[in-house]
Amino acid sequence: MKPNFAKNEGLVPVIVQEKSSGVVLMLAYMNERAWEETLQTGKAVYWSRSRGKLWRKGEESGNVQLVEEVLLDCDEDTVLLKVEQIGRAACHTGYISCFYRRLHGDKIEIVSEKVFNPEEVYNK
Amino acid sequence: MKPNFAKNEGLVPVIVQEKSSGVVLMLAYMNERAWEETLQTGKAVYWSRSRGKLWRKGEESGNVQLVEEVLLDCDEDTVLLKVEQIGRAACHTGYISCFYRRLHGDKIEIVSEKVFNPEEVYNK
Repeated sequence: MKPNFAKNEGLVPVIVQEKSSGVVLMLAYMNERAWEETLQTGKAVYWSRSRGKLWRKGEESGNVQLVEEVLLDCDEDTVLLKVEQIGRAACHTGYISCFYRRLHGDKIEIVSEKVFNPEEVYNK
Repeated sequence: MKPNFAKNEGLVPVIVQEKSSGVVLMLAYMNERAWEETLQTGKAVYWSRSRGKLWRKGEESGNVQLVEEVLLDCDEDTVLLKVEQIGRAACHTGYISCFYRRLHGDKIEIVSEKVFNPEEVYNK
């Protein structure tokens, strides 16, 4: 069984959750090649829509995601990956989770920990 | 602050997580009207892509989602809702989570509990 890649121009959304904590880390997209490489290597590979190429998560930062579980939804058009996040942070901003901002009326609360400075990681 | 609805034909993906358990229940989509109605009512409202209309989650089954937290990702193009799921099951199949199938090589394991029979709920 595999996702239905025929919908949405060959891409399916992938929810990435840290298995140990249950924290939702990010949402990414996979095409069929990213899906196959993820299953083969056990490391998360996505399709970067902004860069238009395969995105081997952590290839620059070292923060790879080791895949522990792969789940499919009822429609077979969304994937849930449960991962071990190397380096703790999934987000390019340095926060553990991309979902680091919680809305509270007109206010924004920061609800995730920042564990690296992106300038030090990406601009070497 | 609100999601960037200009991308993806006015829709943003919404990850729905049960706040108490951390279980990822489903992925849905919102347009701006669904987003506003969700914030105003405190109950999850989505845009149904298959039916092409607003989807007040639970309007048929009674399984509404009470919104406890609203989070935005770094790109502002994905929402994470933490909810209380009335009736326990989020999925129209009767499973608690839409992600009830885990892939294990060529095998599929059922990893979510089925708490209702969809024929009894939807075909009254």
